[in-house]
Amino acid sequence: MAPIKIHGSPMSTCTQRVLTTLAEKGVTSYELVPVDLMVGEHKQPAFLAKQPFGQIPVLEHGDITLFESRAIARYIVSNFAGQGTPLEGTDAKTKALALTWLEVETNNYNPIVSIIIYQKVFSSYFGQTCDDAVVEEQLKKLEKVLDVYETHLQKHQYLAGAEFTLADLSHLPYTAMMYKAGLSAPYTSRPAVNAWWERISSRESWKKVSGSA
Amino acid sequence: MAPIKIHGSPMSTCTQRVLTTLAEKGVTSYELVPVDLMVGEHKQPAFLAKQPFGQIPVLEHGDITLFESRAIARYIVSNFAGQGTPLEGTDAKTKALALTWLEVETNNYNPIVSIIIYQKVFSSYFGQTCDDAVVEEQLKKLEKVLDVYETHLQKHQYLAGAEFTLADLSHLPYTAMMYKAGLSAPYTSRPAVNAWWERISSRESWKKVSGSA
Ligand SMILES: N[C@@H](CCC(=O)N[C@@H](CS)C(=O)NCC(=O)O)C(=O)O
Ligand SMILES: N[C@@H](CCC(=O)N[C@@H](CS)C(=O)NCC(=O)O)C(=O)O
Repeated sequence: MAPIKIHGSPMSTCTQRVLTTLAEKGVTSYELVPVDLMVGEHKQPAFLAKQPFGQIPVLEHGDITLFESRAIARYIVSNFAGQGTPLEGTDAKTKALALTWLEVETNNYNPIVSIIIYQKVFSSYFGQTCDDAVVEEQLKKLEKVLDVYETHLQKHQYLAGAEFTLADLSHLPYTAMMYKAGLSAPYTSRPAVNAWWERISSRESWKKVSGSA
Repeated sequence: MAPIKIHGSPMSTCTQRVLTTLAEKGVTSYELVPVDLMVGEHKQPAFLAKQPFGQIPVLEHGDITLFESRAIARYIVSNFAGQGTPLEGTDAKTKALALTWLEVETNNYNPIVSIIIYQKVFSSYFGQTCDDAVVEEQLKKLEKVLDVYETHLQKHQYLAGAEFTLADLSHLPYTAMMYKAGLSAPYTSRPAVNAWWERISSRESWKKVSGSA
């Protein structure tokens, strides 16, 4: 098989989503090509030719170039179907729930936590100050979303049921940043969410990816 | 096969995404169960038991209940793989691009046009007035996104290459609303985007779904 190249940064949440997928599938032979966001390498013509929106990560595999971390994750899952954790569910019901909850992560969870983390962590990199009102507003939205997760996770070990899937995996990078930013309370105060987080964040794949960030 | 039920509204963009997928796959035997958003039926316990975030659409199929329009669309595509338009691409390269550009629609396109349409169309339903500054800001972002589409579509007939896929289909409902709201200029001013729009919006599936909205 052609070699896999991941253009990204081990510190970036979207790259981590892809690296964790590779680790779960037991794919160890790939090259991580570092993209230096600090010097704006992702806005240079060479990178824009691969990813026209100027964002990491990008996957190259033979004559295939694709981007968007969740598209890359799905691609890896179907290309390495025969090895590692299935990640898309092994029966029809788990598969349907895995599809649903990965979309929930994308549409309902990620937009909120990415705004919070931008304010709390990244705004200072750009010489801006954290807008506390924005953080408060998003935290309120997050509480409502996590109320739904709590009810759901009281009945299921993982978001798609009994199996760990891409739906869970996709939550790892930003949720870990929430904890690091001192914003663990919305999670730890909800018993089923808390147990789920312990369960998914203690996986070998994530320990490896977050440990080398 | 168990009967398919779609809970939604023929006027809602997210329901239209699902109905268009069914039409492309040649699935005609399903039941559309109307959910009346105007009276808040989607926030009642009976509906929340199916979709805990209180949004349409929902698909029920035998003992499987799933939500999120793009998850439902993917489910239909894999359940009816043997009939209608493939929609996920028939070779590895098209498949990879279809994954990528459906994520682009979800992450880069939909957030912008849904804000614009909310301001221009739906805000008045809730007794609010359109915030023109918000519309202006989002239109600027849209121009940048469509510049990337223009360059891409100058080289490809469809977003994933030579085949119409879910990536194109997913753009139909909101883009049609942009045209109806008098905001077609960002599209018609870009020749390749314009030709792509003519191509996808003239499909029988979309004519049927938009015609009965
Ligand atoms: N939806 C995209 C988002 C990509 C993204 O936001 N990447 C960030 C790093 S986590 C980035 O490149 N930021 C730099 C920028 O947007 O200029 C994905 O999931 O891949
Ligand atoms: N990401 C969801 C969004 C669903 C959504 O926003 N549905 C709208 C109709 S298009 C709705 O139910 N709105 C009512 C509400 O949010 O209260 C999907 O694609 O299904």
